[in-house]
This record gives sequence, structure tokens and C-alpha cells, in this order.
Amino acid sequence: MTMESATNAGHTTLIAGGTVVNAEGFVRADVLVRGERIVGIGVEQAWDADETIDATGKYILPGGIDVHTHLEYPIDGFTTRTADDFATGSVAAAFGGTTTFIDFVKKRPDASLFDTFVERRSIAESKSIVDFGLHAIVPPLVQQPDVHDDLVRLFTEQGVSSWKFFMAYPGTQMVEDDELLAGMDLALKLGAFPMVHAENGHMVNRAAQQLLDEGKTAEIHHVDAHGHSQEAEAVHRAIVLAAEVGTPLYVVHVSSEQAAAEIAAARSEGLPVWGETCPQYLVTALEDYQELGERAAGYICSPPIRERANQAALWKYLGADGLSTLATDHAAFCMEQPEDLPPQKLRSPGYFPKTPNGVPGLEDRMMVAWEAGVVGGALDLCRFVEITAARPAKLFGMYPNKGTISVGADADIVVWDPEADHTITAAGGHSRTDYNLYEGMRVSGLPVTVMSRGRTLILDRELQEVARTTRGRYLARGAAQLF
Amino acid sequence: MTMESATNAGHTTLIAGGTVVNAEGFVRADVLVRGERIVGIGVEQAWDADETIDATGKYILPGGIDVHTHLEYPIDGFTTRTADDFATGSVAAAFGGTTTFIDFVKKRPDASLFDTFVERRSIAESKSIVDFGLHAIVPPLVQQPDVHDDLVRLFTEQGVSSWKFFMAYPGTQMVEDDELLAGMDLALKLGAFPMVHAENGHMVNRAAQQLLDEGKTAEIHHVDAHGHSQEAEAVHRAIVLAAEVGTPLYVVHVSSEQAAAEIAAARSEGLPVWGETCPQYLVTALEDYQELGERAAGYICSPPIRERANQAALWKYLGADGLSTLATDHAAFCMEQPEDLPPQKLRSPGYFPKTPNGVPGLEDRMMVAWEAGVVGGALDLCRFVEITAARPAKLFGMYPNKGTISVGADADIVVWDPEADHTITAAGGHSRTDYNLYEGMRVSGLPVTVMSRGRTLILDRELQEVARTTRGRYLARGAAQLF
Amino acid sequence: MTMESATNAGHTTLIAGGTVVNAEGFVRADVLVRGERIVGIGVEQAWDADETIDATGKYILPGGIDVHTHLEYPIDGFTTRTADDFATGSVAAAFGGTTTFIDFVKKRPDASLFDTFVERRSIAESKSIVDFGLHAIVPPLVQQPDVHDDLVRLFTEQGVSSWKFFMAYPGTQMVEDDELLAGMDLALKLGAFPMVHAENGHMVNRAAQQLLDEGKTAEIHHVDAHGHSQEAEAVHRAIVLAAEVGTPLYVVHVSSEQAAAEIAAARSEGLPVWGETCPQYLVTALEDYQELGERAAGYICSPPIRERANQAALWKYLGADGLSTLATDHAAFCMEQPEDLPPQKLRSPGYFPKTPNGVPGLEDRMMVAWEAGVVGGALDLCRFVEITAARPAKLFGMYPNKGTISVGADADIVVWDPEADHTITAAGGHSRTDYNLYEGMRVSGLPVTVMSRGRTLILDRELQEVARTTRGRYLARGAAQLF
Amino acid sequence: MTMESATNAGHTTLIAGGTVVNAEGFVRADVLVRGERIVGIGVEQAWDADETIDATGKYILPGGIDVHTHLEYPIDGFTTRTADDFATGSVAAAFGGTTTFIDFVKKRPDASLFDTFVERRSIAESKSIVDFGLHAIVPPLVQQPDVHDDLVRLFTEQGVSSWKFFMAYPGTQMVEDDELLAGMDLALKLGAFPMVHAENGHMVNRAAQQLLDEGKTAEIHHVDAHGHSQEAEAVHRAIVLAAEVGTPLYVVHVSSEQAAAEIAAARSEGLPVWGETCPQYLVTALEDYQELGERAAGYICSPPIRERANQAALWKYLGADGLSTLATDHAAFCMEQPEDLPPQKLRSPGYFPKTPNGVPGLEDRMMVAWEAGVVGGALDLCRFVEITAARPAKLFGMYPNKGTISVGADADIVVWDPEADHTITAAGGHSRTDYNLYEGMRVSGLPVTVMSRGRTLILDRELQEVARTTRGRYLARGAAQLF
Repeated sequence: MTMESATNAGHTTLIAGGTVVNAEGFVRADVLVRGERIVGIGVEQAWDADETIDATGKYILPGGIDVHTHLEYPIDGFTTRTADDFATGSVAAAFGGTTTFIDFVKKRPDASLFDTFVERRSIAESKSIVDFGLHAIVPPLVQQPDVHDDLVRLFTEQGVSSWKFFMAYPGTQMVEDDELLAGMDLALKLGAFPMVHAENGHMVNRAAQQLLDEGKTAEIHHVDAHGHSQEAEAVHRAIVLAAEVGTPLYVVHVSSEQAAAEIAAARSEGLPVWGETCPQYLVTALEDYQELGERAAGYICSPPIRERANQAALWKYLGADGLSTLATDHAAFCMEQPEDLPPQKLRSPGYFPKTPNGVPGLEDRMMVAWEAGVVGGALDLCRFVEITAARPAKLFGMYPNKGTISVGADADIVVWDPEADHTITAAGGHSRTDYNLYEGMRVSGLPVTVMSRGRTLILDRELQEVARTTRGRYLARGAAQLF
Repeated sequence: MTMESATNAGHTTLIAGGTVVNAEGFVRADVLVRGERIVGIGVEQAWDADETIDATGKYILPGGIDVHTHLEYPIDGFTTRTADDFATGSVAAAFGGTTTFIDFVKKRPDASLFDTFVERRSIAESKSIVDFGLHAIVPPLVQQPDVHDDLVRLFTEQGVSSWKFFMAYPGTQMVEDDELLAGMDLALKLGAFPMVHAENGHMVNRAAQQLLDEGKTAEIHHVDAHGHSQEAEAVHRAIVLAAEVGTPLYVVHVSSEQAAAEIAAARSEGLPVWGETCPQYLVTALEDYQELGERAAGYICSPPIRERANQAALWKYLGADGLSTLATDHAAFCMEQPEDLPPQKLRSPGYFPKTPNGVPGLEDRMMVAWEAGVVGGALDLCRFVEITAARPAKLFGMYPNKGTISVGADADIVVWDPEADHTITAAGGHSRTDYNLYEGMRVSGLPVTVMSRGRTLILDRELQEVARTTRGRYLARGAAQLF
Repeated sequence: MTMESATNAGHTTLIAGGTVVNAEGFVRADVLVRGERIVGIGVEQAWDADETIDATGKYILPGGIDVHTHLEYPIDGFTTRTADDFATGSVAAAFGGTTTFIDFVKKRPDASLFDTFVERRSIAESKSIVDFGLHAIVPPLVQQPDVHDDLVRLFTEQGVSSWKFFMAYPGTQMVEDDELLAGMDLALKLGAFPMVHAENGHMVNRAAQQLLDEGKTAEIHHVDAHGHSQEAEAVHRAIVLAAEVGTPLYVVHVSSEQAAAEIAAARSEGLPVWGETCPQYLVTALEDYQELGERAAGYICSPPIRERANQAALWKYLGADGLSTLATDHAAFCMEQPEDLPPQKLRSPGYFPKTPNGVPGLEDRMMVAWEAGVVGGALDLCRFVEITAARPAKLFGMYPNKGTISVGADADIVVWDPEADHTITAAGGHSRTDYNLYEGMRVSGLPVTVMSRGRTLILDRELQEVARTTRGRYLARGAAQLF
Repeated sequence: MTMESATNAGHTTLIAGGTVVNAEGFVRADVLVRGERIVGIGVEQAWDADETIDATGKYILPGGIDVHTHLEYPIDGFTTRTADDFATGSVAAAFGGTTTFIDFVKKRPDASLFDTFVERRSIAESKSIVDFGLHAIVPPLVQQPDVHDDLVRLFTEQGVSSWKFFMAYPGTQMVEDDELLAGMDLALKLGAFPMVHAENGHMVNRAAQQLLDEGKTAEIHHVDAHGHSQEAEAVHRAIVLAAEVGTPLYVVHVSSEQAAAEIAAARSEGLPVWGETCPQYLVTALEDYQELGERAAGYICSPPIRERANQAALWKYLGADGLSTLATDHAAFCMEQPEDLPPQKLRSPGYFPKTPNGVPGLEDRMMVAWEAGVVGGALDLCRFVEITAARPAKLFGMYPNKGTISVGADADIVVWDPEADHTITAAGGHSRTDYNLYEGMRVSGLPVTVMSRGRTLILDRELQEVARTTRGRYLARGAAQLF
């Protein structure tokens, strides 16, 4: 069953009395929505509307965009998967003020990349309450004719305009430089946007093997296999290769000061390179899990969550546009094994190489960034919107439909209360997972009303009926916009 | 006589059919102006207006802001002055798409800084057809009680929220580090924004004296006295001092790759430092005047116009936000001596130390930046707006009244034709000066209609009656907005 | 036949009246040699000797050491080889003031690495008139048991204490990072010194293929396939990997400013990384061969000889110890095909991918470095000795036996005339090749008398009988000395 | 009384059985001294000597050179002085293995610089048991005719070939950039070597005044007035100015990682700039004195002794030649006030601005550097000799007479026991001061026998009669040797 995603085309909503915040600036203004789109922004207007939302004392933000999620995502040769499906994940997203996410399609061993995509798109369309896109993960052998042709089809027919390459995980997903170059060449030719998971897989493997040889298999040693220089080297190399090819580049989940410094330096020289970081690298740290024993598994992701001393540099670069986007890499697993899910976080206690990688955060991203960033002083209001919505929209070919409160844009709107008092907990959240890295954190910024393409999914923190009867849309995306 | 600057409060103008361009992005939208302000931006609106401007196929830009001009500006102890007064200068500005400029007030030897300001403001108010502000030039002895008190009064009573310090010109305007620190401390305390002319005056003086000792007095040797390291050293030092004090910093007229690199590096580290450059450094070069003999005087300014090989780095940094604003340092002198003006450019032929420093450019700035930058590929459309309007407005405390097409903002609007064919000439321009650095340059971007606070000064390249009967306003400005 | 390399143990030679120059400094002193060694350095000594060499007005230098040569070196699967054999090459070396060289052993396809070494050592011992060592070239599959075991044996039994890895030439000699890491780990364990040919082979291959696809097969396009960033990326990566392993590192034939900057930066941070450059990169340039057509083949080597604008940085780094040694990468081929040699330089005219890589220089190195470096002002006298003798001796485990005029050291001594007038020509040289990159260069520094372990091979520019009747020794070397 | 400094010209001493260590390398060799000079270095020599010193198992080092001392040094307008005179200081030096020191001459208010020099030289000649030189401190008004002429005379007549400029202490010793440039110009013209005390005096003064305004006058706040950026800015500026002038530059007492990084970066680019650091910055730290209350006065010097986290970078740069010399800035004061000395360290308890600046270290330098550096792994044996003797000798125009064990050199020789067990204490030392920063430190390297120009001042740790009956010589020095 595919549910209707369209709203009544003529229905109007007036969001009145708030302060419109865009990446560029903020102004007191009313916003008029008709059908799926914003049609007017004004003051002193005598607008009539079918429905009025009072935003007095609140900010009117473009809906958040999380360009890095892994919902019902297969790992280990499709033998297990993450805990959230597109239904629970998208509801969590909406409650966190995120109205668009971009997930990934990874080729099934027994199907073509294109067919895998078609299936995955269809599943997501049937479940997600918000709009979404899909990045393609480029398999190691880029130049194999079938992979090449599927990438072309995905780009041209399905708007899969961003492709992810792994510089880690040799033997499974890693591409050597020849394949990465070939992939970038193809991306450039079509106009697709290359993304890289930047860790030198050979260095990681060597370090991991040394740890295993020394009997250091406990969860806490995961971080020891993923050093700063592993990440920084791969970032450096990806930048050199992209410059050689002449393509823009996006580095996902930057976790290390050294890696961020490489990106910042390249950007300072005018290279079209962007870095993404995630809340877990900014707000949690090695010191939070190093005494947890097996439960440190809950913090295992790659690149790893690093020393607290590493955080300041990430904030600095995120503020100064050395790092440009905030996504989550949401790959949620449960700590307690549910009956209806394949093996989760603790499937191999005491043996980190088999612990599933990934942490949750999709619902928490904007609240955490608000509290630790805006209230904390590292981000101003406009920069908050830029990293959570505007820049992701531009880079991933959705702007100005998404990422801005502008006339003509999709009415993806968040009414944000900057004077709330909310406590983040796993129990109070909407993700399927049973723990939260930010458990107990009090936040003063909260999305109270959330609209997706004109549909008011959440009103005053209550999920609305429309969220049950309609679905978001798959987004065929265009080329990255580099302004 | 003070002319009326207000327009009929209820008068409405609809700018229809164009594409609104802001620093953040661009959308197809109509803009509704009522009185002095923008009150609506919309699509599918049934707006009635007293007057409609058809902008089909055109861009609707926020009015340009030039934060560095010297109109009827006294030099050499007030014995001579620049050629343009506030009347000719502001008309030239408007024809160039610039609807706001910020000039300087320099203390008269025989009057207090405050009194000098009052007089200068009054003169400008009586002549300028567009809005304007004034920076204060901080005299060398910052800590003298009268200077200190006048700076405080100018900030608090007159909105003079930006102060310029000279690190060059020892004996006249230069402040040593103790005075610069004291000035920055005071600026920080009040919220004023420090600007620096960054050249190490001692180095310049030494180099100039060596040239004179060697008999190298010709115009072409001016550049030899103002080396790259003179400028870069001062920029470096200003950044260190500002960081020590904890104040933001603005570096005017950055001309050298090395100097720009210092700023870009600081920005990459998150320091609140901004650099301005000017069209003359981007588009003209030493190679253009080194064979001109005495007429090289027309290119003499400080810092100097440098080698062509230096340009690429400036463009690179301007594109990548290592440099953040484009101003002109418009200090126009005539090459042929008019009867009604004190000695101009060629008052000391063959002897560069007495040649008045300064070049024109106020009318040309946006056209030149469009052609060489946007058409040339170094700037995208949004970046063009950012460096010519949005960022200047933010840094100098005028945003969002200026620098953006947003509801609530002043209706300072330029209808920009991106498919024009216009040739820049001195004869065809509106500045009082008789030469133009860009003489003969063909440009395809042209401001056709220019509105200042709701008054249509120029319509289809024709100056309107309202430009003769009304004047712009002095802008009491607030603190720099750092987002 | 193995000729005797020992000299009469009791024979004494006094080198009198000269100025002894070491890397550290220079002093007026006499040098007394007994048998193979220097036994005294003094003034005011009443030394009697069997033989006296008058060095008045001359410098007494430690014999030059060229750590990068390819004599009778097999390429293309051992189907062809370089023109010089160990006889002609070693005579050329001696005439150039070089008394030690280190060549390479590359595994024969049909023999083990160890057996290949034994054979090659034996051939060289039978022909070389000066002492020599051999580096091992590590085949791609480092971890194969036979390769691993042979490397261990070569190090422990034969003093092959330096190993070269190729980051270029995928499919033949290139090691991916996993193999490079494994090789470095083994080197660290034993105390061997890793050397890298640093070019990103995947980038080179891609660029070369693009050129071929475009029909750009002429000799001049060789340089286009070997960009600066190809080299700089590999250098950067090698440094990161070496730091991860904790091993020192030596980068051979650094040709690019960017690559040199990477090494200089690492050294400035205290990393034990050294870079070698070669005369061809310092003194000749792309501009010298870009108009030569097929005869540009004579300049083809990898990395390529680059733009003249690149030279200044190499000199700068060589002077400031960012680059630390000067070797030749002497791989001489003939331009005219001799009957007794396999196909040489011009075997594939118009098709650069098959042109044998390599240029001559073994005889010219010290004269060229003297003239362009010492006389040219980029190197002082001590630095000249350091880069041509002392540092190579230290890094390759031969110091203080070689590389210094010190008591106890081998009597490898060059009497250097700093006021000579000599013109470099191919015809006047001793290499087998028939062209010279420095043809016609006049040099004022010349080795007039050359002693190898006490044997006076050349006296006043005349080859002595002892050079015909004795041979140099194979040098079993120790670990790199890092001071 | 001027005592005889010459030794019996024909007297010979053989230092047998040791290992000669120079900056370049080390070899087993015997050293023959005749009169004041080394005349032979050899093995297998049948040298007869009047006297033999057995150095078996010991190192034979060139005598240490401390180029930064303040013996009986006047401060505060000549109202007080340091505790050590040239007698106690030179004995302390000798016991520490230092056979040459360079102190400073500062112009008396009531005498010319030249006359002050003559008097100071004479006093030192009458007391010092080892050789010494004097740097000139350049008074603020470099360009005053008398100062200028005295500097010229000092250079040409007295071999005062190194001049120190203060970038700190405005109002007393500080030179602004114009004077510093003029001084450098003069130095370049003559061949003198400019040294700078690099702290931005204006920044220091501002910070100090803020502390006083806040009542923060305790000793521990001294460090707060002398921030890292104060030092780094001045270093940066000095390098720019020196490069502009084209002169080499020496930065004394580098204490901050940031400052050292500036020097290292300049050196990496080939600029002739050298940095000196001191044991107190390498081995002691803020953490050692921050709880000492008034007795923190014993650690007060400028630049200050900084955070322990700062040390690692200094060691790194000292090892990698970013910093090139180790001196002491020995300016010893007593903690307990002796009756015969003017006010010492604790003259203004609780009020840091009046605490005399300076710490002792002349006797300890080499032992501390050996233990913390050589034994600690940061320095190798040759580097130890380079920073303590060879490089100072070269830079300050004394090489190869000093700083090397070479034939022809002065017989300034230290027999160093690397297997000693000695504990550093104030009580066991020879300085006049009553405390020691390294109190209780156990060292395994010790100078056991010390020879100064052929005179054995200390034999087996016993001061010899010759030290009582003879004196060292004043050294008229030449230009800096930059190799």
C-alpha cells in the first residue's frame, strides 16, 4: 500500500507572530503556506488562512535535514540490521525537528544495485512519514560494467545524485585509489556528488590485528584501532584525488581534529570540499565509555568517539565552516536483544571486532546541537540552521525546495521553542533503540510543531492523524549546489 | 537646507517577475514595498500596488553597500581633498547599484573629533542621495581624555560603531601597539568594531627613505616602498592584538596574497577577523601602469596595486571567504587639474612621496565584480551579493535593515540586468574624476533600476526627480553582527 | 676472478697542505693515511710518510657517496638494462669524486631475492673499482614467506640494511598500503631503513591512460602523467605510515616543491624523515627538453624533470635541510643504439610509455652541485660535503667509516681543486652513455686526486694502475644513524 | 692586576683513550695538545707528551659555550646587580663544563657605551678563569650619533660582533620597529649579528597593568603578564624585519611553543634565523612554583617559565633544529639577602613587578641537558655537543677556535664521564646564589676534567692551582658563521 502524500492543494496555513530564521539571517515575519509550499512571507499583510499557528515568541526554522542515516540497514552481508525501520526512524526524526533524511542503498549480494535500490525505495515510501532521499554506496569494483551502468541509471532515472565510497573496510567495501578515481571520474561526468568514509582501511586493519594479537579484544580497544592519523590520512588523500579529478567532495562523519584540519585547510584554499560531523563526536567522548566494560559497545562506531580534548577543535571548525554540516550517522542498535530483531549491539561481548558499529541520534540531533552549540556559545542561530538544514539541502541537490524558509520552498517548517525545558531520554524518545547517548541531558530548545510539505505532522508535541494516514515522498535529487 | 528623506508612508511598489537573490540563495518571487520597507515576498499573491516595476528576466538584489569611501575627504592636514563631494559621489554610487556607503571622519587639527563629525555628517546629509554612515578615524593618541570621550560619545550618541586605526603613516596617523591595544580595549568595552589599515609604517618609511636616497622618486617606485611583507606583518600583528584583547577585527583594503593568507588562516581557526579587498587589487595590476611614467600617479594608492601574479590568490580567498567584503577605498582625484579643486593627482610629477594616494571605483565596483567575478567564474551569484551587500551590512551594524531582500528590511533594491552590454568609461560615469581604471571594460551585468528606502532613484538607467528633491539618511549604526 | 682490494697495510700517505672539510666545519690540517685508514690529522707534526700528496690550495673532502644508482640494471622483466656496467659506472664515479655508491638488487622473476642478490654482489665485486653497497627492492608481496625470509637473511647475513618500496607502478612493483605497512613493520623489527619511491601509482596510471586516450603519446607528455600532487600525496602518505609504525623513512628522488614541503614540514616537527634530490631536478628543467621532440626521451625519468619555476624551492629545501641528500638515480641509457646493448632510450620513439626511464649523472653530481650550489650560493662548503657524503654515510649505516675525514675512517679521500676550469661533456666523461644533461657546463670545482680505502685511484686526473688491478669492496652496512 | 693567561707554549698534553665527540660524529681517538691548541688527533700514533690524561671510557667534548649570561650585571638603572661576579660565575661555569661564556655590556647612564664596555671588559679580564666575550646591548635610540659610533667602534676595534635588541621593556630598553630596523641595517653593513629579546613590550605592559588594576600583584601573576602570544608575535615580527633587511637573526631565550614554531617555520623556509632556549624552560615548569607563594620569586624570569605541557614542544624543536642552541640566561640572585650585595630576589615580596628577573643555571646547563636530554632520549650525543658548543661557537664568530675538537682549535676540552652519579644542589655548586632550580636532580653525566686553552683548570673534579694564578681571555669575535 502506498499512502497519499499530497495535501489539499488549496489549503492555507498561516504561521504568525514568529521570527523566521534562515542561514543568512532572521526577521520578524509571518509565513503563509498554501498546499505544499510557502507562498508568502510578510509583515503588515492581511492574510486569511484556513488555519493559523501561533508562533509568538518562537522561531520558525526550515525543517531539519539529516543526510546520514541508516534505517533498517543491513550489515554483515545482510545477516543483521539496525533496529529502527523507516517508520520508527521517521517518527523519531519528526519529533526531533528533522523533516528530511537521506539514507543509503547498499547492493544486495544477490541482486543488482539498481534492483536493490528499487526495493529499498519502495519500502521506505511505504513507511516514512517525512520526505527522504537515498545515497548510493558504490561497491568496490566501480568499473565493472553492471555497477557502472546502475550508477548511471540511478543518477539519471532516480535522482540518486550522491555516491558514497568507503576508504575503509578492505575486502568488503573498501575501494583502492584506482577505483576511487574511476568513481570520481564518473561522478564528475554525470554531476554526482562523491562522499567518502575516510579512514585508511589498511592502517585500521593493521592496528586491529595488532590489538587482537595482544589479546586486546575488549570493546574499549575499538578506539585504539581507529587512530587520528588513520582518519586524517584518508581525508588528505581523498582531497588530493578529488582535486586531481576536479570534483567536489564530501567527507562524512569527521571525528578527529586532524582530519577536520585537513578539510579546513583545503577549504581555506578554495577547494570545494565539505566535512560533516555528528553530535556524538561533539558532545560525548571516550571518557564517557572507557569504564563501561561490555556496555561500551553502545558507543562503538567508526570513526570512533574520541578523547574529550578532541571536541573543542570540532566545535571550532563547525563554527568557522571548516566543518559544514551536522548529521547523525544514525545506526541504532538495541542493547537488550529484542525477540523480533536479529542480533544487536551485544552479540559478541568482549570482542569488539564483531560488535555492530553505530549509534543512535536522529531524534536528538537538533536539540543537542541547540543546547551544546547555540546555548553553549559555539554556534549562532543562523549557523545552527545552516549546518542542520540549509547546507545539507544545497549540497545534496534539494535547495531551495528544502533547507530554507523562502517563498516557493516546500513547507517543511519547524516551530522551535527556545525557552523549553525538556530532558532527553531513551524512554521518552521515538527510536526503536533502548538507550540514548545523551540520556538525562536537559535542553531548552525544542521543536513543538513540525510541518512536512504542508502537512502538520506534529502540533504542540502531539503526533497528528495526518502522520498516520499520509507518507513522505522519495526525493529525486539534483546536483550539489556549491554556493 | 535639509531635504526630506521620507517617502509617502503608504505608497506601495510591486517588483514583479524577477528572481530575488540574497547571500543565501535565490528564488523566483515578487517583492512588495510599502513606504520605506519591504513588506511582502511572495508567489501566487494577488498584490495590488500603486506602482509596478517589471523585473522579468532580471535579478532583484539588495542595494550594494560600499563600506570604504573617501568623499570630499581632506588630506595633507586638510590642505587638499578628493575630487568627489557627497553629491557627485552618491550619484555615482547609485548608478553603480550602491545604495549605502560608509565614509570616514578624521579629526580636524583645529577642532575636536566630535565637532568634526557633526560638521561632516551635516554636509553629507545635505548632499547624499543615498543612505550613508561614517566611521571614526582614531587619532594616534587614543588615550588622551578628549579623544577617548569623543569616541564614547560618537558611539553612544551617533551610532559611530566602527573605528579605523592606522598601522601606517608614523608621525601623522599611525598608532603604536600600546595605542592600538588601548583603542581595541575601548572598542570591546563599548561594542565598537575596530578596523585597521594594515601596513607596518616603520617598514614602509624605511623602504621609502632608501628609495629616495637612491634617487628613485618616480611614481613607479611607490609600489617598492609598500612590500608584501609590510602588509602581511601588520595584518598578523593586528590579529594577535585583537585576539589578545578579545575583539573582532576588520582589515581594510587587503592587497597582498600574504596578507590575505594571514586572515584566511585566522578565520580557519575560528577567529572573528574579516578582510576587505577592492576591485583595483583584483582587476588591475602593476603591469598596467609600470610604463605610464608620471601618469602612473593615477594608480597610486596604499597598499599599492601589485603584480598580476598576486591577483589569483585574492580571487581565491574572496571566493572562499578568507576575504569577506568588497569595497572601493574610493578616493578619487583628477588627472587634469580643475580650477575649482585644490591640487590633484599630478601635483608633484616625478616625486611619488607627494602624490595624493587613492583611486576611484565607487560607481564601477559592482559591475566590475560581476564581470570579472561572476561571469569570470570566481564568484557565484550569492557570493556576489554577500561580499557587496550582506556581509558589509552585518559587520557594520545595519543588518537586516540593509544587505538583504527580506520583509521588514529597508527597500534598498537593485534591479540587475544580467544580459546588458555596457562599457565602462570615465566620460560615461558620474564621478567627478576624469579617468577610470577600468576604461573600456565591457560588462554584461548592469543595475537598471535602483531604489533607496522605497524611493526609486534610478529607473531604467535614468535618474529620477526624487533623486533631486530628497536626500539619503545618516545611519546611526549598531554593533557588528558576527553571524 | 676476484681481485685484491686490500692495500699494503703498512703503507703511509701524507696529504699535506690542504684544508680538511667535513660537514661540520673546515680546518687547515695534514692528513696521515696508513693502509686503508686515516690515522692522524694534525698540524705541526713531523710525520714521515711513504708518499706525500701536495694539497696546497686544495680542499680535502671525504669521498663522495651516491646512494642511488642503477648500474647494469635490469628493467622490463629483465629484458633490457641500463648502459653502464659496474666497471664503467665505477670509473665514472671515481672521476666524479664519488668513492662509494649504493645500487639496488631487484628479484629476478626466476630466482629468489636472496639468490639474485648473491649473483649481483658477485658481479659488482668483480668489476667495481670503488666500494659499494646494495639496497634491496622489496617485491609487492612483502608478506609472502619467501620474500620475508630473504629480507631477514639479507639484513642479518649480508648487511642489506636499506629496503626500497615502490608506491608507483601498480601491477609490477607497487605495494599497496597494507604491504608497505607490513614491510615497515619488518624493517623496524630488524633495524632496516625503509626507502620509498613516492608517487601515487594509481594517479599516475589514470593520468597516463587519459593521455593515451587523447592520443598524447609523445615523449613530452611523460611529465603530464606525473603531476606534483601525485608525488606529494605519496610522500604525505608514506610519512603518515612511517609515523604510525614508528620507523624512520627515506624518500628517494624528490622532484617537486610540494613533495619537498611535506618532508620539510615533517622534519620541522621532529619526525625522522629524510628526502633525497638529484642534480637533474636542480639544474635541468622541462623548458630544456620540451622542444626536443623524440630526443626528449633523454630527459625521461620518474618523477619527471619539472618546470624551471620548481627548482628554487628544491635548492631552498636542500640548503635548509628539508632535503638532506644529493644522489643521482643514475640510470644511463644511450641515445644511439650500440650493437652490444639491448634496446636503449629511443626504442619506442613517439610513445613515452615504453621509453626506458632514467638519466645519467654519476660522474657529474659533485661538479654540478659545486658549481650550481656552492659557487651559485645555495650551498656552503660544509653543506656540500654533508649532502654528498656525510649524511648519506650516516643514513645508510657506513659512518664514520665513510663520509668524514676523521681518524679511524676509511681513507676515501678527494683532493678537490676549487679553482679548476673544466667543461662537462659526454665525450669527456667515463660513463657508457653518449649524452650528458649538463653538456657544455663549465665548472670550477674538480676532483683531481681520488683515494679509495688508501688506494690512490686517480692522481692529478689520471687513472692509476691500482684502479686496474684492484677492486672495491662490497659493504655490509648497519642500521641508519639518525644523528 | 692582570694575570697571565698564556700557558707554556711548548707544553704538551695527551688525552688518551677516550672517544672524541663533535657535533658531526664521534670516533675513538687520542688528542694531542701543544700550548694552547690541539695539534693532533690520531690513532696508532706514538705521541710523547709532557702530561697524559687518561680518558678511557670517557667522552672528550669541546668545552661548553654559554652565550647568554649576566654576571655582576647591573639592573634597575645600575642600582642593584646579580649575585655572581665574574670570579664566582666563571668557576661555576668551569665546574659545569663550560669554558666560554658571553655576557653583555649595557650602557651606563653616566657613561658612553664604549667606555662602559672598556670598564666591563677590564673587570671581567681580571676575574674570569675562562675565556669570555661580550655582546652589546643596543640602547633604544640606535640612530643617535654617539650610539651609532660606539657600535661601530665596538665591532671594529673590540670584536663585539653580536648586538642585542629588546622588543620588551618600553620606556627603558625597548626599541620600536624603526629603531630595530635601523639597528639591523647597521649590523648588516658591518657584519654584526642581531639578537632579540622577543616579547611585545606593549602587550606585556598592558597585561601587567590589568593585573595590577585587579590587585593581582603576587609573584605567581608574573607569568600571566607574559603570554605565549606576546612572545610569538615579537618573534614573528623580528623574523619579518630581519628578512626585510636581509640580515641573519638570533632569538634569545625562546620559552613558548608558539614562538619556537615561528622560528622552526622560518628555518624550514631557509631563513637564517636561530633560536636559543634554556634549561629552565625545558626542565622546570609553572607547576613547580605556582604553590610557592613569595618564594615563587626564585622562578621569575622573562619570558617566564611556562606550563609543563609547553615543554614537549621545546624538546621537539631543540632536537629537530627548530631551536639551535642551549644557553642559560644565568642571572642569579640570592633568596636570602647577603650583607654584601644590593637587594636580591625577595626585595619586594608579594609584588612581582619589582622582583628582579633572572634565574641561575650556568653550572648546571650541561649536566641537566645531558640527563634530561641525552639520557632522556630527546637529544643524541652529537646534538648535545652541537647545541652546547658547536653552534654557539659558529654563530658568535668563534669557530673553529672554539666549539670543536679539531686540530688548530683552542684546547678547550672537557673529559665527560657518562657513568657518573652526581646530585645537583645549591650547596654543592659554585655560584654565589643560594638556591638551585634543579635541587636534588641526579645526573649521570659529569665533566670530570676541564681544560681551557691548554690550562687544566679542573682535574678529576678538583680546581687546580692554575685556575687561581691565570685568567681567561677576552675574545674579540668575528662575524657569525652560518654553516
